[in-house]
Amino acid sequence: MGESLSRDYFIKRYKEVRNFTEKLTEPLEIEDFVVQVMENASPTKWHLAHTTWFFETFVLEDSFENYQPVNSQYAYLFNSYYLQTGDPHCRDKRGNITRPTVKQVFKYRQDIDQKILDLLDSCSEREFDQIGPVIEIGINHEQQHQELMLADLKYLFAQNPLYPAYIPKEDSMDESIESGLTWSSFDEGIQWIGHNGKGFTYDNEHPMHRQFLQEYQLANRLVTNREYIEFIEDGGYERHSLWLDEGWATVVEKGWEAPLYWEHKDGEWYYYTLGGFQKVNPDEPVVHVSYFEADAFARWVGARLPTEAEWENAAGNQPIEGNFVEDQYFHPKPDTQAGEGLHQIYGDVWEWTQSSYAAYPGYKPLPGALGEYNGKFMCNQYVLRGGSCATSLTHIRPTYRNFFHAHERWQFMGIRLAK
Amino acid sequence: MGESLSRDYFIKRYKEVRNFTEKLTEPLEIEDFVVQVMENASPTKWHLAHTTWFFETFVLEDSFENYQPVNSQYAYLFNSYYLQTGDPHCRDKRGNITRPTVKQVFKYRQDIDQKILDLLDSCSEREFDQIGPVIEIGINHEQQHQELMLADLKYLFAQNPLYPAYIPKEDSMDESIESGLTWSSFDEGIQWIGHNGKGFTYDNEHPMHRQFLQEYQLANRLVTNREYIEFIEDGGYERHSLWLDEGWATVVEKGWEAPLYWEHKDGEWYYYTLGGFQKVNPDEPVVHVSYFEADAFARWVGARLPTEAEWENAAGNQPIEGNFVEDQYFHPKPDTQAGEGLHQIYGDVWEWTQSSYAAYPGYKPLPGALGEYNGKFMCNQYVLRGGSCATSLTHIRPTYRNFFHAHERWQFMGIRLAK
Amino acid sequence: MGESLSRDYFIKRYKEVRNFTEKLTEPLEIEDFVVQVMENASPTKWHLAHTTWFFETFVLEDSFENYQPVNSQYAYLFNSYYLQTGDPHCRDKRGNITRPTVKQVFKYRQDIDQKILDLLDSCSEREFDQIGPVIEIGINHEQQHQELMLADLKYLFAQNPLYPAYIPKEDSMDESIESGLTWSSFDEGIQWIGHNGKGFTYDNEHPMHRQFLQEYQLANRLVTNREYIEFIEDGGYERHSLWLDEGWATVVEKGWEAPLYWEHKDGEWYYYTLGGFQKVNPDEPVVHVSYFEADAFARWVGARLPTEAEWENAAGNQPIEGNFVEDQYFHPKPDTQAGEGLHQIYGDVWEWTQSSYAAYPGYKPLPGALGEYNGKFMCNQYVLRGGSCATSLTHIRPTYRNFFHAHERWQFMGIRLAK
Amino acid sequence: MGESLSRDYFIKRYKEVRNFTEKLTEPLEIEDFVVQVMENASPTKWHLAHTTWFFETFVLEDSFENYQPVNSQYAYLFNSYYLQTGDPHCRDKRGNITRPTVKQVFKYRQDIDQKILDLLDSCSEREFDQIGPVIEIGINHEQQHQELMLADLKYLFAQNPLYPAYIPKEDSMDESIESGLTWSSFDEGIQWIGHNGKGFTYDNEHPMHRQFLQEYQLANRLVTNREYIEFIEDGGYERHSLWLDEGWATVVEKGWEAPLYWEHKDGEWYYYTLGGFQKVNPDEPVVHVSYFEADAFARWVGARLPTEAEWENAAGNQPIEGNFVEDQYFHPKPDTQAGEGLHQIYGDVWEWTQSSYAAYPGYKPLPGALGEYNGKFMCNQYVLRGGSCATSLTHIRPTYRNFFHAHERWQFMGIRLAK
Repeated sequence: MGESLSRDYFIKRYKEVRNFTEKLTEPLEIEDFVVQVMENASPTKWHLAHTTWFFETFVLEDSFENYQPVNSQYAYLFNSYYLQTGDPHCRDKRGNITRPTVKQVFKYRQDIDQKILDLLDSCSEREFDQIGPVIEIGINHEQQHQELMLADLKYLFAQNPLYPAYIPKEDSMDESIESGLTWSSFDEGIQWIGHNGKGFTYDNEHPMHRQFLQEYQLANRLVTNREYIEFIEDGGYERHSLWLDEGWATVVEKGWEAPLYWEHKDGEWYYYTLGGFQKVNPDEPVVHVSYFEADAFARWVGARLPTEAEWENAAGNQPIEGNFVEDQYFHPKPDTQAGEGLHQIYGDVWEWTQSSYAAYPGYKPLPGALGEYNGKFMCNQYVLRGGSCATSLTHIRPTYRNFFHAHERWQFMGIRLAK
Repeated sequence: MGESLSRDYFIKRYKEVRNFTEKLTEPLEIEDFVVQVMENASPTKWHLAHTTWFFETFVLEDSFENYQPVNSQYAYLFNSYYLQTGDPHCRDKRGNITRPTVKQVFKYRQDIDQKILDLLDSCSEREFDQIGPVIEIGINHEQQHQELMLADLKYLFAQNPLYPAYIPKEDSMDESIESGLTWSSFDEGIQWIGHNGKGFTYDNEHPMHRQFLQEYQLANRLVTNREYIEFIEDGGYERHSLWLDEGWATVVEKGWEAPLYWEHKDGEWYYYTLGGFQKVNPDEPVVHVSYFEADAFARWVGARLPTEAEWENAAGNQPIEGNFVEDQYFHPKPDTQAGEGLHQIYGDVWEWTQSSYAAYPGYKPLPGALGEYNGKFMCNQYVLRGGSCATSLTHIRPTYRNFFHAHERWQFMGIRLAK
Repeated sequence: MGESLSRDYFIKRYKEVRNFTEKLTEPLEIEDFVVQVMENASPTKWHLAHTTWFFETFVLEDSFENYQPVNSQYAYLFNSYYLQTGDPHCRDKRGNITRPTVKQVFKYRQDIDQKILDLLDSCSEREFDQIGPVIEIGINHEQQHQELMLADLKYLFAQNPLYPAYIPKEDSMDESIESGLTWSSFDEGIQWIGHNGKGFTYDNEHPMHRQFLQEYQLANRLVTNREYIEFIEDGGYERHSLWLDEGWATVVEKGWEAPLYWEHKDGEWYYYTLGGFQKVNPDEPVVHVSYFEADAFARWVGARLPTEAEWENAAGNQPIEGNFVEDQYFHPKPDTQAGEGLHQIYGDVWEWTQSSYAAYPGYKPLPGALGEYNGKFMCNQYVLRGGSCATSLTHIRPTYRNFFHAHERWQFMGIRLAK
Repeated sequence: MGESLSRDYFIKRYKEVRNFTEKLTEPLEIEDFVVQVMENASPTKWHLAHTTWFFETFVLEDSFENYQPVNSQYAYLFNSYYLQTGDPHCRDKRGNITRPTVKQVFKYRQDIDQKILDLLDSCSEREFDQIGPVIEIGINHEQQHQELMLADLKYLFAQNPLYPAYIPKEDSMDESIESGLTWSSFDEGIQWIGHNGKGFTYDNEHPMHRQFLQEYQLANRLVTNREYIEFIEDGGYERHSLWLDEGWATVVEKGWEAPLYWEHKDGEWYYYTLGGFQKVNPDEPVVHVSYFEADAFARWVGARLPTEAEWENAAGNQPIEGNFVEDQYFHPKPDTQAGEGLHQIYGDVWEWTQSSYAAYPGYKPLPGALGEYNGKFMCNQYVLRGGSCATSLTHIRPTYRNFFHAHERWQFMGIRLAK
């Protein structure tokens, strides 16, 4: 799914991404690798092993006729949902498995890395043409899991009344160079949406196709905590008329009164961040809000969320730069960019769109088990765009489609308005 | 929401629709009016009262300054979800209420009918301009509830091991004049979608707007039971690769093996119909399948479901005729139409589209409590088009958007394929 | 299980009890017979049919070799839990069944009554010796269901915000002739507990056996609403130290703040009674409290609940008289008895004992399916003694053991203290 | 609660028990200390900290006026259910807490040990009289948690498809010297039950009181796996008539077909033991059965379970010896004792009695928060007697009352029959 790249490039990129995964675990104690506190948030140990299993299953097993797995039960323990490769272990039981130990999982990574690098080194060109694209998927897959790992760890630490920090940080005092929200306008017309096929992409970005867009406007920057607090203080969480029916039901059932990780104490808002428990910085973009909250906020303002086509059409011309995981800041930053045009399009927070996650016209999933990667989730989820402070710069692009359920908040998700 | 119509027309149509609701209850025993067996399926008594409450609340209360409700607690008992008019009684508890009795509810209907007809008779032109549109919504609202009533009654009777018939009927032996499935082709291009504003419509059909459609094909008729049985016999319910992820989870959790109301007995398929428990007629359109099943069936065939824009673009030129509730057949019929082109577009079964229910660009809900009618459900539901054997002929149109959750099956829902 | 009685006696008693069941349904509308609002509270229609099925199954089917059931599916629909007679219809789905209609169920009763009375008239002495005891169980079984029917109807009506009365009544102003709570003392020693076998009894009252009782004291009367309100006002429902662990968990989970059916309005306590929604009469015995509440109240007072042996030992000498269902008052009454000794021992409310429901030493269940009547419930339930205002005078005796789970409140249950 | 013992004795016993807890954790990896897989089974780390918190709260905080806790949040994290000492952290969330780390918890233990030993060394006689009894409760409390820890670890490891062993062992081939089951008889009469007050006891063993026991017989040994397999093969889990009503419901709901940890593979029975996954040894006592299974097995045999009074009356004369946790075998052993009389009364498995856990006549809980230790659990649980292979020899006595819910199986529970 993309043009062919050199063997050296692959070896370098494979090593970089695999190493970065392990670098992200350096602040952790053994205990932190093991626990699962909700079905959607897997233990770090599982992420480490699952990304490795991916290379073992889709590259090594396919390359060697009588491949002997490093441990035959890992296929069961570390499969996620690829039913065609055999029944996976229940997703909500990943945290029950204390063995293999963390040490054994790191050993598993080393073993597979050695085999993959040996294979890349020794395989014929014809073999390389086959495994290259799969390794590229594996590398991108691992980057996705790096991001999940951070979100899952944040969720884990936030359950602990001691609020341990992933990497302790001072309260952020950064301020934005703010001059109010402005709007960028876009003309109506037929636009090409989706990827043209140069470079790595997922199947769900294809095929490139035409859509007719009405005239629209996008906000120049993300919604801030300051604005979101105004929404809260204006009774945002108490006025059903601002909410979708399922959104209101969720607010009532879960008792939501603020974004995930926020706490009201002595008249001030605090939140848990990967840097520890801190006072909310009003200039930062709001993060950890659900689709329901993004939608309600937009209705309160008198605006709406963009469609994914609107977003993509606007973002296509923007440079891919911003606050990514490579910065190791692990939290969105205030908008400090001056001038007109769109700010914070990439990085900081994933931006909810109003678009239900669906197949593009003429969409075809990858053949075989990898076809389960994207297509089968095209139901009851909403698309997010632009990457976040937990995403790799090398992983994002204008056509990239992320997707979550409307009630989910534990990823780094925020809001950009449209009209 | 539509051009103004004469007072006589309203009086006639009001009477017709209100009478037809009561006609539909004639086959029932008192006991059948009361019971609720799932949250989504309300008791007949509740439908009778709720549609009446609608006129009382949105017409009478708004028309008379000191309006005294017929019974002040009915507003609580028979509100559905209009939070702006006050807290409704819990939806899943509608079946707990044995009083008012059925007789009292019919009395309530008569009282309100009298008041509405008096009002229509006596109001000034200016008042008529105000209440006319609301009465028209009320009439259409009641037609929607007629359809729900039939689906809910079917669901109720099907829980009873005695399988009582709503209106006993012989097994259908009708055959289709079938010559295989054929496809109608449609060119790519910009199309106008949504309603132009003449005649009654709901807010969700507006505004009319342009969409770019790729070239596509629609099947000439609905999917039949014969075809669906082939899918079952080919392991359709056992092969996860045919299903969306949430669809497969639903199949496993609910143990689905066939459409709702089907039973396998002595090597034959049977189903419960409103005519009683019968042998499945293979020539009929399959009905009572979820979005998940429609989607899996389409994947099995190598086709897909249409988008709602594709459907609307194709259906716009078709005459609105078919097997509607006025026929009092209460079940879809085999395709007996000869010749090319699209058959069974209207009536028989609601046709699942692949489109998530969403606002059209520039959509504005009605003002006030009636604004809760449609917009707040625009999340995690899928659009169905064309009406069914339980829909009124006078209620349907090319732009009409019905919507249900992907797992729901108790409405009269079926499948038309696209490519 | 008891000495033999004359055929005439049986015919008379059969007719009386069967008629009284139907008399109890006279205040009902058809709608009231059908609905089930919790698993434990069955529809009146079901009670009417089930008690009839009991006679059909255990008397008629056993008496006639080729007995043709009145309706072969009733055995499935109206069995309760007798697994040996075939799978019963799910208990929580009794309310889904609108057919047979109420009229048809009354017809079923008449048909079976005719057959039973014919059989009693025509059978040989040897046959009579066999069926007599089973009919006696059936009569007592029906009396149990009369009581359940009243409790279930009360629960049903109480769900309705309109609070319909079963039989409308004025607020009770009756006062007790109260002179404070006094205590009756009983010596330590070996006592005979259980039934000696004269007259009808259930298997769980056997065998009569010895128990050693320590010295103890019983309160002369039941705990009143006045006393219970003091408990509430003293923070009874807020102080975990007063409660059993499971009791406190129940209070928190269910949000209990008072007995079932109580509401606090404008600083006063009200309750729903079968006579309608009324102001709580402080002189009446408190009713509709769980074992947990009875136990917590007793701990608050510094007393405890009696054991069932203590209760039986004390009650054995008391006359069986009081406020029973024959009075058709359907609610407990204030203690108006003067003088020393035990008041209100029988009737008014079932009295919770601290005894877990268990087999007496040497207990043997009845043979066959009727052996499922009692023994299999001897786990996690607590014994209540003395009958209530919903019990028949002809149904109660000193050795009678009723039993419910510790959290249940919908029967007419109250409190007598011990030390 | 017991006569006073010397200071040296306390110091020695404190050290022994605290050290033994840590010895039991030696086979574990860090990962094994952290995870919780069901509400009732706490992480090892929690047990280590909670037993320490007990000494800190009930001894140190009470002894020093301005005691500064080692970590002020530990009181919240490591309280179990003592509501009087402040809200405990939710029991089902103990596994969410990765910090403090295992190392920090061991440090916490050392800190508290030092303080306790210093206190024991330096306190006045008057102070010693106060803290001695509390320390003794703390020591016994820790022994209870040693046993829970082993049962919880077994449950944890059994969730892992890799079946890691706690301490790997060969399959047991031990055989019993069996000559069939025999019965010991006991005469009827008044017996003293409960503890006379010499030596340490829990409040629930008091007061000693009289009970009248009918003549009864006890089986000379525990029920074996061989006998239990016969029950299974005779359809024990398929015949509802053998089960209590709630037992049968549990069998159906949970799909039970054998004791906990058993698996049927290639026609043979296997089980997970703390020594690993092994073939069932038919001569061993059956273990990990619920009250429901013990009761059904007894009914199948034509016997019953003993009452706790019967058990205590019989066991009072037996020497306290057997297979205890000190043996570090962690699994019950076959009966190898020759001769008449009762075997295996102590150790091996806790023996279910038919007695609901209830207060003895005149029972008084301890004052203060320690009064929550036992009394508030006296509802819906059943008494077990005699200790198990996970119990300390120094912890058990004839009057010791253990208790669990009827459906629980994860402790080392087995069956002795009575008639």
